Amino acid sequence: MTSNATLLARRRRLLGAAYRLFYEEPVHLVSGSGVWLRDADGRDYLDAYNNVASVGHCHPLVVEALSTQAATLNTHTRYLHEAVLMYAERLLELMPDALGNVMFTCTGSEANDLALRAAKVFTGGTGIIVTKHAYHGVTELTAGLSPSLGAGAPPARDVYYVAAPDPLHDGSTDGTMFAADVRAALERMRADDVAPCALLADTIFSSDGIQPFPLGALRLAAEEIRAAGGLFIADEVQAGVGRTGTHMWGFARHGVVPDLVTMGKPLGDGHPIGAVAARPPIFDMFGERARYFNTFGGNPVSARVGLAVLDVIRDEGLTANAAQVGAALEQAVRAIQSRTACIADVRAAGLYLGAEIVDPATEAPDAARAAAIVNTMRAKGVLISNSGPAGNVLKIRPPLCFSPQNVDMLASRLEDSIAASA
Amino acid sequence: MTSNATLLARRRRLLGAAYRLFYEEPVHLVSGSGVWLRDADGRDYLDAYNNVASVGHCHPLVVEALSTQAATLNTHTRYLHEAVLMYAERLLELMPDALGNVMFTCTGSEANDLALRAAKVFTGGTGIIVTKHAYHGVTELTAGLSPSLGAGAPPARDVYYVAAPDPLHDGSTDGTMFAADVRAALERMRADDVAPCALLADTIFSSDGIQPFPLGALRLAAEEIRAAGGLFIADEVQAGVGRTGTHMWGFARHGVVPDLVTMGKPLGDGHPIGAVAARPPIFDMFGERARYFNTFGGNPVSARVGLAVLDVIRDEGLTANAAQVGAALEQAVRAIQSRTACIADVRAAGLYLGAEIVDPATEAPDAARAAAIVNTMRAKGVLISNSGPAGNVLKIRPPLCFSPQNVDMLASRLEDSIAASA
Repeated sequence: MTSNATLLARRRRLLGAAYRLFYEEPVHLVSGSGVWLRDADGRDYLDAYNNVASVGHCHPLVVEALSTQAATLNTHTRYLHEAVLMYAERLLELMPDALGNVMFTCTGSEANDLALRAAKVFTGGTGIIVTKHAYHGVTELTAGLSPSLGAGAPPARDVYYVAAPDPLHDGSTDGTMFAADVRAALERMRADDVAPCALLADTIFSSDGIQPFPLGALRLAAEEIRAAGGLFIADEVQAGVGRTGTHMWGFARHGVVPDLVTMGKPLGDGHPIGAVAARPPIFDMFGERARYFNTFGGNPVSARVGLAVLDVIRDEGLTANAAQVGAALEQAVRAIQSRTACIADVRAAGLYLGAEIVDPATEAPDAARAAAIVNTMRAKGVLISNSGPAGNVLKIRPPLCFSPQNVDMLASRLEDSIAASA
Repeated sequence: MTSNATLLARRRRLLGAAYRLFYEEPVHLVSGSGVWLRDADGRDYLDAYNNVASVGHCHPLVVEALSTQAATLNTHTRYLHEAVLMYAERLLELMPDALGNVMFTCTGSEANDLALRAAKVFTGGTGIIVTKHAYHGVTELTAGLSPSLGAGAPPARDVYYVAAPDPLHDGSTDGTMFAADVRAALERMRADDVAPCALLADTIFSSDGIQPFPLGALRLAAEEIRAAGGLFIADEVQAGVGRTGTHMWGFARHGVVPDLVTMGKPLGDGHPIGAVAARPPIFDMFGERARYFNTFGGNPVSARVGLAVLDVIRDEGLTANAAQVGAALEQAVRAIQSRTACIADVRAAGLYLGAEIVDPATEAPDAARAAAIVNTMRAKGVLISNSGPAGNVLKIRPPLCFSPQNVDMLASRLEDSIAASA
């Protein structure tokens, strides 16, 4: 078997300097099933991080759909095929009626990029509002709207920043503060003579530190951007497809119907699928001006995989599971919080939980301790990560089939890891 | 069975106005194998168009690699995995030594977008040269470098256009004319005070009408862009991976080693795989400034599929097949040309052939007749398309496993279709 050191050297030599690995001691994985991942030494890890494997690693029904369709036909959307239409119908059935069209890409980056292209055509504007530590993708445009990537991604043209909601620090109890921030950004746009195009927001503000609250913030913010002639684009790559438990989409928690909805990571249980849902007038106008062809987007294999994932979510009741097990997870982490001074905040929606790690003495964000906890968890066989502008927010985001027993194991290892990091 | 009319109506309602279908009477496909596609009525079509199914539709070894790995593990590049490294090694073994790194995306659009991001960081320049009817992708940046998309894709910042080589019309016999055009574009850049970044070129100028000649044009043009401090990016989405028969990559026909090589369509036999190869100093500098993570890019399933495609190309001798069968194809179409006045030019490299359709009386491009031929071919059970600035170039680009018998069938149907279109 190849040692990690050898793999690391090959990786650096072959893939170059831009790739990053998780953990001080990277994990060399060889197989996965459900919420479990196995490394090359035969050691099992509880996966409490990967939302991409939304219905569990290597779900047999998803693998079967993939394998069967790949053996039958894999072409593209310039021929007629029923699967892409069935998948479009199923996705749209899960959305508010106003969202009547869907287009397919291969990644969330491509989905956000396409949504922005369409929004620019529809509004005639160019000004885009994102949060200060947003992440929306890796194309030049979406990387330029992803300040969390740092200086390596130069800001896109006409980008305006707002603070994500952050009740722990900004004291907000409702969405008026976020909406006021959006309004102020629109005023700066007006002063710059830039016409508004869109507010693009991750509906759980994942890279801003996981901010599921206050509810209603996105509804009020959408009213602001629309009053200025722009569109509200809900980036559901993180919160979407049942993760929050109470709703299929993060925007629905906020009581808002977006103009455009972008989807990615969890759609394909690992297979590359992205999508953009829209109010039909938006794609009508985009389609009048531009044709769009994504070679692999919406191909029959991706469509069958996407359908299988939606089938599994429905048939296994995974949205309800995210609500129930997510509540147990939140309760367990809050119980730990009550026994340690280093967790300043626990915030969660379904199976998406952030726990803010601070120095108990100063209450300042403690990224080093968060990293230590993440690495100790990995050593103890549980995979999580950290996030947020200060890097001090534990990010817990397991596959939707996480069980109460998985919560017990995670909580036990988490409490031990926090103690070990003191 | 669902009628085409019903599917068309559902499609327009669900997917919106930006999608386009091939053929006056679209094809409703249900299965594929090798060079054959079958429609919902059980009718078989000879596929002489799809380079995506590079080693043939639903190749069993590719399907097996896909299915086996999808059932085992499908994660991402933030964990160690051997398959992505093996795939990187195999791709780089097929390239000149100077290209020592490779990064993975899901699509050719993402590959071009990433290559341009890296080129901008490395050169500090922003000026990009593309051909006048180029196609390089659908992200905002790459669509803006794709004038073939028309007015729906606004030009990217600092884009400069050059005419693609076109010996039939520009009379060029070597690459000096194209190189001079690139030099003139660099002079316009200098006059605009724009620092050069890159020349981005499809190495067979597919959307410019399929222009495999004159050889050496890209070598001389690369010398011009480099002398000005920019990079040469070879877009191998069309010509790459053995298609031209004599070489694995289109740039190699021109005797040039690019700074960056972008790959897409044919890599995965239908599975979404894109890649960028680079001289290591380019990704070193990019990696110092920026991290890059493409959720699905380089995942174990895509890597195993990519490896399987390269295995099949090697084990079935498909590059040599492209050379031999491509030569037979060219000979057959030239024979037809000798018997009709409507083909002004036949140009080919391996299994990529363009045939320029003109009005015999005026010698003007005849897009209507080209379209009629394409649609008649479809009615006769052979799938091809048309391309080029005037839309009058028949585009013949079958899977690499095309056989001499397939050539005979195609040639027979083509001659009949030309006669029927008179």
